Amino acid sequence: MRDRTSFLRPDLAQLAAYTPHPGGETPAIVDRLDTNESPLDLPTDIKSKLAWAYQEQIEANRYPDGSHQELKKAIAEYTTESANLNDSLNTDNISVGNGSDELIRSILIATCLGGNGSILVATPTFSMYAILAKTLGIPVVTIARDETDFSLDIAAAQQAIESTDNPPIKVVFVVHPNSPTGNVLADKELDWLKSLPENILVVVDEAYFEFSQTSIVGEIKQRNNWIILRTFSKAFRLAAHRVGYAIANPDIIRVLEKVRLPYNLPSFSQIAVSVVLQQRQLLLPLVQETIEERKRVYSVLQQNSHFQVWQSQANFLYLRLNNIDRNHQDSLLAKVTASLKAEGTLIRHTGGGLRITVGTPQESDRTLARLEKQVSLLINN
Amino acid sequence: MRDRTSFLRPDLAQLAAYTPHPGGETPAIVDRLDTNESPLDLPTDIKSKLAWAYQEQIEANRYPDGSHQELKKAIAEYTTESANLNDSLNTDNISVGNGSDELIRSILIATCLGGNGSILVATPTFSMYAILAKTLGIPVVTIARDETDFSLDIAAAQQAIESTDNPPIKVVFVVHPNSPTGNVLADKELDWLKSLPENILVVVDEAYFEFSQTSIVGEIKQRNNWIILRTFSKAFRLAAHRVGYAIANPDIIRVLEKVRLPYNLPSFSQIAVSVVLQQRQLLLPLVQETIEERKRVYSVLQQNSHFQVWQSQANFLYLRLNNIDRNHQDSLLAKVTASLKAEGTLIRHTGGGLRITVGTPQESDRTLARLEKQVSLLINN
Repeated sequence: MRDRTSFLRPDLAQLAAYTPHPGGETPAIVDRLDTNESPLDLPTDIKSKLAWAYQEQIEANRYPDGSHQELKKAIAEYTTESANLNDSLNTDNISVGNGSDELIRSILIATCLGGNGSILVATPTFSMYAILAKTLGIPVVTIARDETDFSLDIAAAQQAIESTDNPPIKVVFVVHPNSPTGNVLADKELDWLKSLPENILVVVDEAYFEFSQTSIVGEIKQRNNWIILRTFSKAFRLAAHRVGYAIANPDIIRVLEKVRLPYNLPSFSQIAVSVVLQQRQLLLPLVQETIEERKRVYSVLQQNSHFQVWQSQANFLYLRLNNIDRNHQDSLLAKVTASLKAEGTLIRHTGGGLRITVGTPQESDRTLARLEKQVSLLINN
Repeated sequence: MRDRTSFLRPDLAQLAAYTPHPGGETPAIVDRLDTNESPLDLPTDIKSKLAWAYQEQIEANRYPDGSHQELKKAIAEYTTESANLNDSLNTDNISVGNGSDELIRSILIATCLGGNGSILVATPTFSMYAILAKTLGIPVVTIARDETDFSLDIAAAQQAIESTDNPPIKVVFVVHPNSPTGNVLADKELDWLKSLPENILVVVDEAYFEFSQTSIVGEIKQRNNWIILRTFSKAFRLAAHRVGYAIANPDIIRVLEKVRLPYNLPSFSQIAVSVVLQQRQLLLPLVQETIEERKRVYSVLQQNSHFQVWQSQANFLYLRLNNIDRNHQDSLLAKVTASLKAEGTLIRHTGGGLRITVGTPQESDRTLARLEKQVSLLINN
């Protein structure tokens, strides 16, 4: 057969597109606990305020502000305040993207493209680093995490950095706390990241910072090779609006600004972020409720002898089945996930376990009941 | 000095970021005729409808629909109808992006990355093809256009394709009608594009299609190596919302879908496009007013012996100064543009001429008066 698309890169043919909710048709969904969203929409009065702003302040026919100056000022202020920094961050420490996804892509383009570098990831972790790297033809070096606490295997990481040279590892991606496993970076992991030479970029994805209240932002000004990624899609309840941000030194920020699309953020998304930052005293208390609910769900899961469940510093929990080997486990968990989906409950089967977002108490109770029922059925068969 | 950012690609250091409104501080702007936006916002009742949809139909806390199925259906329908196609386009002929910019980037990533190909552009033309190619390390081959009618220099284009081989030209970008010059593709140019081998991708950017009413969309089903780009930022008045789309055969669309960011379009931008497509009978008549106004502004400019002005099939006009050599011309036009900006009028100095968006009659009259005054002052000095 003649190749009808010979202008395309041959290596793209093998790649699969990212599938948000894999596994067949979705019925009317009751409980969406698979993407770590906030369980609650913005309060009605904030949505009214935004609807009003759209009508009165935005000219739909005009391009958005491509400089993001107002937005960056508000983000720098929030970031400084939320970490109690003495030395304030400024607008030149911030770049804003169409979700963190665009920032991850910009980082990859700025560093590793064209045979210039490889990236290092430790699985299980957020899948988008490797997916976006592959679409750009960038090699991905993968190491494992410890199976008991999901910390990085530092010896393996160090070994990968020393032995990879064609092209060498230029970027290390870590999530803090990690998704899907919920653990924050331990001191020994931070010490290792600090020990990396300055020609390796360290990307610390703090998408779940508001839940963990643990950040490495205090290190940014002393470290020229560190970037933090954050998002408004989780604690700030703006997943529909697609806004993420990067925090780093001005040298790095300048390059991210150069690489990004000039009008990457719709005007309405920019206003939405300004408003939720102004209203943070009203919105962020839900984080504490989510943490309490996470503790409750954790203890329910822990009381069930079928489950091994890990402590989490994020808005989700990670669990596996006790005493079942890895291959059999994956096949059982795939069945459990599909059965739950058929009942209208979405959870994520990933990294050899299940990741369940902390929803409302009603969502969690329904999900726990369905999960326990399905697992009992399968294991007792 | 020690290089503090040695993890970055060395070739990025030379690149400048795209500057939306170059040339110093902007005063309170009265007339924004530099980015080819529609002069009018959406009507109040459409904005109210959208504001209502935001409050009642969008959950801000949930990720957008990443499949864009509804949107693609509406776009396929509009595209089929607007070209009177017998053979309807379907959702698998459409991909939607964060503006055409994201689609341009996806096309470049899918074809030329990593030394796989170069691109061909004919200047003056839309600058973003070359800017995005350079951020990706992709070589740009530039040929000139005819100085009287701005058609492609076909001999030069053919020569460039035959002689470029390291890497070979994989993509040709043309705008139809071209920006900044306003001319549509002539028959001889279309014949040449049709004569290109199937291993070269032809991208026809129809951003201004609604103004020219001339499209090559009828060719898409027969041509496996053609892509059309369109946008909602011009005739549909949605520049603030950032939505562009591509029309092509399913083989190409599948790859663009694989390369794009999975949640590239905020929920509100998706709803905005659905609504303006439903309301197109109400919105598109403004196109005819813009065309009438373009004819009026053209005849005013043509009566001034200082100006050489070209007929345009888009929502802007292109002009140069008569009898002034290229270098002197560029320095005079830079002064004119800066003086107008200081008075509150934005126009674009590009490709050795001035591009002026067709605004409201009031905007055009003010701009014409200021332009004529500044040019007389400069030329009589």
